[in-house]
Amino acid sequence: MAELTHLDDEGNAHMVDVGNKPEMRRSAIAGGRIRMSPQAMTAIREGNAPKGDVLGTARLAGIMAAKKTAELIPLCHPLAIEAVEIDFTFGESFVEARCTATLTGKTGVEMEAMTGTCVALLTIYDMAKALDKGMVVEEVRLLQKFGGKSGTWRSSR
Amino acid sequence: MAELTHLDDEGNAHMVDVGNKPEMRRSAIAGGRIRMSPQAMTAIREGNAPKGDVLGTARLAGIMAAKKTAELIPLCHPLAIEAVEIDFTFGESFVEARCTATLTGKTGVEMEAMTGTCVALLTIYDMAKALDKGMVVEEVRLLQKFGGKSGTWRSSR
Amino acid sequence: MAELTHLDDEGNAHMVDVGNKPEMRRSAIAGGRIRMSPQAMTAIREGNAPKGDVLGTARLAGIMAAKKTAELIPLCHPLAIEAVEIDFTFGESFVEARCTATLTGKTGVEMEAMTGTCVALLTIYDMAKALDKGMVVEEVRLLQKFGGKSGTWRSSR
Amino acid sequence: MAELTHLDDEGNAHMVDVGNKPEMRRSAIAGGRIRMSPQAMTAIREGNAPKGDVLGTARLAGIMAAKKTAELIPLCHPLAIEAVEIDFTFGESFVEARCTATLTGKTGVEMEAMTGTCVALLTIYDMAKALDKGMVVEEVRLLQKFGGKSGTWRSSR
Amino acid sequence: MAELTHLDDEGNAHMVDVGNKPEMRRSAIAGGRIRMSPQAMTAIREGNAPKGDVLGTARLAGIMAAKKTAELIPLCHPLAIEAVEIDFTFGESFVEARCTATLTGKTGVEMEAMTGTCVALLTIYDMAKALDKGMVVEEVRLLQKFGGKSGTWRSSR
Amino acid sequence: MAELTHLDDEGNAHMVDVGNKPEMRRSAIAGGRIRMSPQAMTAIREGNAPKGDVLGTARLAGIMAAKKTAELIPLCHPLAIEAVEIDFTFGESFVEARCTATLTGKTGVEMEAMTGTCVALLTIYDMAKALDKGMVVEEVRLLQKFGGKSGTWRSSR
Repeated sequence: MAELTHLDDEGNAHMVDVGNKPEMRRSAIAGGRIRMSPQAMTAIREGNAPKGDVLGTARLAGIMAAKKTAELIPLCHPLAIEAVEIDFTFGESFVEARCTATLTGKTGVEMEAMTGTCVALLTIYDMAKALDKGMVVEEVRLLQKFGGKSGTWRSSR
Repeated sequence: MAELTHLDDEGNAHMVDVGNKPEMRRSAIAGGRIRMSPQAMTAIREGNAPKGDVLGTARLAGIMAAKKTAELIPLCHPLAIEAVEIDFTFGESFVEARCTATLTGKTGVEMEAMTGTCVALLTIYDMAKALDKGMVVEEVRLLQKFGGKSGTWRSSR
Repeated sequence: MAELTHLDDEGNAHMVDVGNKPEMRRSAIAGGRIRMSPQAMTAIREGNAPKGDVLGTARLAGIMAAKKTAELIPLCHPLAIEAVEIDFTFGESFVEARCTATLTGKTGVEMEAMTGTCVALLTIYDMAKALDKGMVVEEVRLLQKFGGKSGTWRSSR
Repeated sequence: MAELTHLDDEGNAHMVDVGNKPEMRRSAIAGGRIRMSPQAMTAIREGNAPKGDVLGTARLAGIMAAKKTAELIPLCHPLAIEAVEIDFTFGESFVEARCTATLTGKTGVEMEAMTGTCVALLTIYDMAKALDKGMVVEEVRLLQKFGGKSGTWRSSR
Repeated sequence: MAELTHLDDEGNAHMVDVGNKPEMRRSAIAGGRIRMSPQAMTAIREGNAPKGDVLGTARLAGIMAAKKTAELIPLCHPLAIEAVEIDFTFGESFVEARCTATLTGKTGVEMEAMTGTCVALLTIYDMAKALDKGMVVEEVRLLQKFGGKSGTWRSSR
Repeated sequence: MAELTHLDDEGNAHMVDVGNKPEMRRSAIAGGRIRMSPQAMTAIREGNAPKGDVLGTARLAGIMAAKKTAELIPLCHPLAIEAVEIDFTFGESFVEARCTATLTGKTGVEMEAMTGTCVALLTIYDMAKALDKGMVVEEVRLLQKFGGKSGTWRSSR
């Protein structure tokens, strides 16, 4: 059980002590997508036309959720993120979101990037669910991670 | 653009008026999973052995996030959920989460069930990321929906 | 001191009991504006051009803040708002925001409309403050109020 | 559009990277006022008499809101404020609030001071709205700003 | 294990379904106290003299915390409280807090009253801890409970 | 009144300026207990048997509340806690909770440890209140404090 850092020797959850880790510039990029029907795709694209707020809403939702990560994920440390960006690209039958979070601090920002990605995708679900309840959030994963003890990590995919 | 209920006639985001919808008993079930390496699977299973808090932590994170849905998803209505449950099952290379949310109210609880599912899965990611940064959140979708004007809906999958 | 409903007979703050008030459809419209330099006005207008997110960001900030009113204003009752809308219009040297909040409940939504207005304007300040630190939030007031014991009220202005 | 720092090259909102800015002692003072009827003024003054909690409530609301700024203003960085103070003065037909926020950090605290001011004024509105629905929040502006790259700034007013 | 309503048949935490419970007027009174040194007692009493904000601050903290109960206590239902009051009395070596919460709803407000009491007492600790770090929060208990299936309950103490 | 650091010279609440305090490693341990009937004790022990989530739920609630301290206690500074742990021990007629919080920062973490303890105990109350409404939260106190200007402090008890 010692392998799971968030459990102590007795298997109890705790917030790991990061006090001795160095303050370093760290960043993480996560990505994911929401697959949907052609009808929903069309509406989202149109809703994103000039003056439409679909992806703008999802972007802000993701940025604000990244700031809330320590409130949502019980054992995450509160972090003062220094930058968050969320970009979207359209696939044939999906919208892809990518969230980059950056900080100078003692622990990594993977969870902030993952949380920003998920909430951005959930917001797209919310906005188009009247058209397609069957949309699927998928392929949410860490893509890259920079800084910190373990250095750079890239998804093998 | 009129198809997207969260945008008004000019394409601006707004919180749709649900004042005229009837108060009804409504519920929604969402599910999703997190795929991981055999090593992470083993650690999670062991971490879930007696006294280990892995899935217990993810479950509470999901329940609490379901209650926070209207804070996370910008155009969701604040809802007084009456019940939330999250169950996990182990697949060969993934953990599956299922979240059921219930309410007597004017609008559905799909987003609560989707959000509870995502945050439960993200919490598992957080707890096992030291072992496997490449875990993937996938197949997050609405499974069933009861109550409300549109009645029962089931995922075709 | 009895005149201030939020203070009890001894002058102590309390959350007034609204249990005996009838559930009614109620709404409120508040408005306000932010006055700024011509340079900032130009940037905001351009930032609001196709694909620019200035007013979209302010709108969402206001909508989400309206949902948080009871967290911000100490003696406000938590309310399940049923609709929120924020619109902007451009004046010569200011942007005007108008927030409408609606609910079926036991108490009015003036504070939700006022809070949504203020936070939308503060967000515009945030987005343009690099250009003009001297912008002024002004004329934030309740414009109309419908429903409830006191019926319709309109600002004399 | 490049002028608006919160929009990237494509006009999308993002949280600006402050990672390379120096940690410095920074502070900001904002002020604003709420104009009201003589009757409301009298009640507020009396409610602020010994044991009355009117301005004390508004002061705490403002202090707590200053701490919540990054939750309210979508693109604000989470900051660990080191000090917040709110003072009130009575004018003939208005109450004036002044909020000072201070921090050692990488970005300024203007938004914290502005937010603290607005929420303090909104709380006064809430407490006296039974007497005067027509109160107006006005003249909310940054008064001074110390520290940071741009040094000291003072409102020309 | 079936005795603990917050655990399901397998011992997993869940948010109990209250959908079938009747909407009723319910209230709860909780109380507790903080014991302290004579020096701290004197300072608190003086700090509560005209214009001093000690107990006023604790009162608001308790009221606002009562509204946040469902965010703090993982399996509590979100409730739209209709009234909260907190009163303090001075004992010889302690301050006693009493919190009353009221609601028309499907489940009781005991946790709101308990949480409001605790956070009010913790706030007093915070304000006087420079004088006496050894203060003790004690005797926090439910005093009375009205409404609901089980009717009136009074502490035997 | 000058003795109460959270009040300024005029007796108004403010958030004390900690800008000039040194960044130091600081930690605090608080403890407290909840006294209950034998029947409730038995249920909690059984609910904590393999797969039961009673104390696991209370532990997470306490950890998450420690992270929320600055939101709950009005004049507390927002702190980026680096570690939180909560342990429970069973007495004959009570469960005892102990919360340790740690940070490298400019101000102590007593309030985080006290808040984590209280919310953990309140969560136990919530989970067992169907069996025993008369449970009492008691003996909540600071046990030890390390680091900071005043060095180590230990409860005399």
